[in-house]
Amino acid sequence: MDMPVKIYGPISSPSVCRVVVCLLEKDVHNFQLVPVNLAKGENKTPQYLKIQPFGQVPAFQDESVGLFETRAICRYVVDKYANQGNKTLHSNDLLVKSSIEKWIEAEAQDFNPPASALVNHLFFRAAGTPLDPNLVKTNKEKLAKVLDVYDTRLGESQYLAGGEFTLADLFHLPYCQLLAGDDESMFRSRKNVGRWWDDVSGRDSWKKVLEMQKQNA
Amino acid sequence: MDMPVKIYGPISSPSVCRVVVCLLEKDVHNFQLVPVNLAKGENKTPQYLKIQPFGQVPAFQDESVGLFETRAICRYVVDKYANQGNKTLHSNDLLVKSSIEKWIEAEAQDFNPPASALVNHLFFRAAGTPLDPNLVKTNKEKLAKVLDVYDTRLGESQYLAGGEFTLADLFHLPYCQLLAGDDESMFRSRKNVGRWWDDVSGRDSWKKVLEMQKQNA
Repeated sequence: MDMPVKIYGPISSPSVCRVVVCLLEKDVHNFQLVPVNLAKGENKTPQYLKIQPFGQVPAFQDESVGLFETRAICRYVVDKYANQGNKTLHSNDLLVKSSIEKWIEAEAQDFNPPASALVNHLFFRAAGTPLDPNLVKTNKEKLAKVLDVYDTRLGESQYLAGGEFTLADLFHLPYCQLLAGDDESMFRSRKNVGRWWDDVSGRDSWKKVLEMQKQNA
Repeated sequence: MDMPVKIYGPISSPSVCRVVVCLLEKDVHNFQLVPVNLAKGENKTPQYLKIQPFGQVPAFQDESVGLFETRAICRYVVDKYANQGNKTLHSNDLLVKSSIEKWIEAEAQDFNPPASALVNHLFFRAAGTPLDPNLVKTNKEKLAKVLDVYDTRLGESQYLAGGEFTLADLFHLPYCQLLAGDDESMFRSRKNVGRWWDDVSGRDSWKKVLEMQKQNA
């Protein structure tokens, strides 16, 4: 049996979840989560910084290949396991690929900044830090504008990049899950976004990730 | 002669520059810059929002292919013109590709947030908005940590992803140019970053972009 791929970081981390759901979509079950205790600063030790120089989780190791940054790790997983599991997460066809890339970047550059600001403040702020209603309001307004664009787009096609579930949809899962848990109306009040969210959050791969989180809670 | 590809947006925009330098690296000279007057809000008109729903520049049109998000546009250009110009901006080799993707994401997720906050505030803030020394200090500190990681990396290899100039380096050009113009010591005080910056900013493609900016100033 091949050596398991290693993911450094806790399943409670949204970024770790992105990598795990991608592995599950590609039918890769031979992986190992290596604990990194963020509360104890284990992500800032010299040893950890050697494999992830920005001190974030996850880092990723597949035999001699060391990687960081979730979106880069997921691209590697899709390429490495091209012949198994979900084969439409990405594409080599110029037109299909360009649409996937466009919506991957929409996630990274438009959705992610307000979504990560909200998630980090609502769910991961340091103990004792009070809730900042202004920060929440500003970023919810920014996110609402992004979700309005998504609603129009998802009125034209089943998924963000077209007719198939791709990395562009997958990258949204962890933050949408947390944000929908806090305020489901952001998603439900937009007909096409609501329909899309029911679809993507109901995938077996994602339900398995949520199950792993429960078991580790 | 083929129809020119169209880039909607002014050459004064760092994001437009990213696309133009990529076209020049790929020896694509048959392109047209379509004016979009940001000061007059032409990027928020219903007509423009049809081609760029987030109201940003640039948008991109190549015959029937409409795209937005600079990093996605550049990926398309690299694929479409695979057989001409610089052939090492990206790669289909699993290992080479994964290193390029890792450093593309470092730019997008680690370098870009503080760099864009600084550039937008220092060079593009609304008329009458006073300089916020706190914003500048905070983001310079964040950027310094990123450049420290880059300095270590660039002590190991000539460019970010390895021995070749790739999209990972290219994506840094416009913001580094503006930031170096404001405070060159951020780059010069780090030996390997300084060497890299001399190299990448001295490329013919980038010098041509700076020339286009001067002509349009």
